[in-house]
Amino acid sequence: MSRPLRVLVDGTDGADVPATDRGLHYGDGVFRTLRVEQGRPCEWPLQLDKLQADAAGIGLMPPPVAILESQVEQICAGLPAAVLKIILTQGYAGRGYARGYRDYGARCILLLYPPPAHPDAYWRDGIRVRWCETPLAINPRLAGIKHLNRLEQVLARAEWHDPVIAEGLMLDTDGRVIEGISSNLFIVREGKLLTPDLSRCGVAGVARGMILNAAPAYTRAVHIRDLNPDDVLTADECFVCNSVVGIWPVAALQDRRWPVGPVTRRLQSLFGERWPPVA
Amino acid sequence: MSRPLRVLVDGTDGADVPATDRGLHYGDGVFRTLRVEQGRPCEWPLQLDKLQADAAGIGLMPPPVAILESQVEQICAGLPAAVLKIILTQGYAGRGYARGYRDYGARCILLLYPPPAHPDAYWRDGIRVRWCETPLAINPRLAGIKHLNRLEQVLARAEWHDPVIAEGLMLDTDGRVIEGISSNLFIVREGKLLTPDLSRCGVAGVARGMILNAAPAYTRAVHIRDLNPDDVLTADECFVCNSVVGIWPVAALQDRRWPVGPVTRRLQSLFGERWPPVA
Repeated sequence: MSRPLRVLVDGTDGADVPATDRGLHYGDGVFRTLRVEQGRPCEWPLQLDKLQADAAGIGLMPPPVAILESQVEQICAGLPAAVLKIILTQGYAGRGYARGYRDYGARCILLLYPPPAHPDAYWRDGIRVRWCETPLAINPRLAGIKHLNRLEQVLARAEWHDPVIAEGLMLDTDGRVIEGISSNLFIVREGKLLTPDLSRCGVAGVARGMILNAAPAYTRAVHIRDLNPDDVLTADECFVCNSVVGIWPVAALQDRRWPVGPVTRRLQSLFGERWPPVA
Repeated sequence: MSRPLRVLVDGTDGADVPATDRGLHYGDGVFRTLRVEQGRPCEWPLQLDKLQADAAGIGLMPPPVAILESQVEQICAGLPAAVLKIILTQGYAGRGYARGYRDYGARCILLLYPPPAHPDAYWRDGIRVRWCETPLAINPRLAGIKHLNRLEQVLARAEWHDPVIAEGLMLDTDGRVIEGISSNLFIVREGKLLTPDLSRCGVAGVARGMILNAAPAYTRAVHIRDLNPDDVLTADECFVCNSVVGIWPVAALQDRRWPVGPVTRRLQSLFGERWPPVA
């Protein structure tokens, strides 16, 4: 429940957001959450690519890269470790669903937070996860995009208060396993790495992309395919990932227990040279 | 594309919204859009009921009614005709999807707009509508609720720029007709009034509820059921409704043309004594 260290709204320090903002009214925008180290955003080229692709996915014109980068540089400067959230919204465009492209551009909202304070054990020994009852709706038009319509994740996260459970796994309305509330999911089976198909719903995160790119060096094969809950429970290894925490092994789900597996441990090194304190 | 005449954020005139607002970050909130006449919100008991039910539907604690009503009264005072938008968000609760109920309450954002400037012919002769390609995702957990996750409506409304088309009709991902982008849909067939089942997706609006309550006096029967596009195209009458415009007859869809039918015209009187200028 950390408060932001600093906020920049279109480059203005500490500003609020107009009550007319279309991000607020409709979720008409996209976002990224990423790590900052030594005053610089991590994996910036990948994060920028994804931000631009997601903006294009909902027909949002992002600010010029030079302006965005200068604001990101401004807010991150001097911070040894932090989390940066970048929100781009369609800005102001009057009452009603119709956008007013010609008159108004995207609004860029940057929020800088302290680094997360998770226990070291989350990286070292793994986390306990649960199944969420709130389903993810299927809409291929929005699948994969990290947009601002995240009420499903909010409702899923509100299903439990037990601090021992670090993440919830979400199914789509047809019962397929899709992702964690704020992470992507991978399993390992017979040396093969599997992760859910996100063409119907879910967010195709940057950490997931990094793992998919790197995985052929660590595993026999990589498959993107539909998974059901039993596939997860019977997997040899299971882990979740995102750009903020890197990789958390899954150690417990229902009655199932996993030690941290060799593929998971090897893949952690993709992220683990930085703040996740992998032994 | 009207600008608000006035904005109240938690009772403060002209205020902006903190960049940490969960309505902005996640669409974690609900809203109402309604008419104001002679300084008072129209159908206030129904609007308040729906606002409270929708807030409960996403686990949001609304402000005390007396406080909400006093802010609504404050913003509407003296206005002969206007449109009021009420947004309740989960307010501030730190980074991440988890809400912090105990520390923070709902934020109340009121925006007052000029009355809509639609042509009289929309009420008198009806409107042209189109089918939207953007589908509505099915999620019974959120169905019926007017929450702030409205990107599907934004994308649907961005499909056309022809000002002759006044509304778009949306299908769910399984091809059922659900509603207009900012309205509910009714058809008349053999004297019976039919409107789509909204248990999978869609917004169950206040105007729809008023029509369903009143309709038995005007029609042989009222049915809430699944409709497909052909049901609409072969209907005897077709109209859309919402709390701002009342009822607009549908006059044209693809090659189909309708005169304004008798059931539609009679039902318009539910709303038509006020600003819709029905002859």
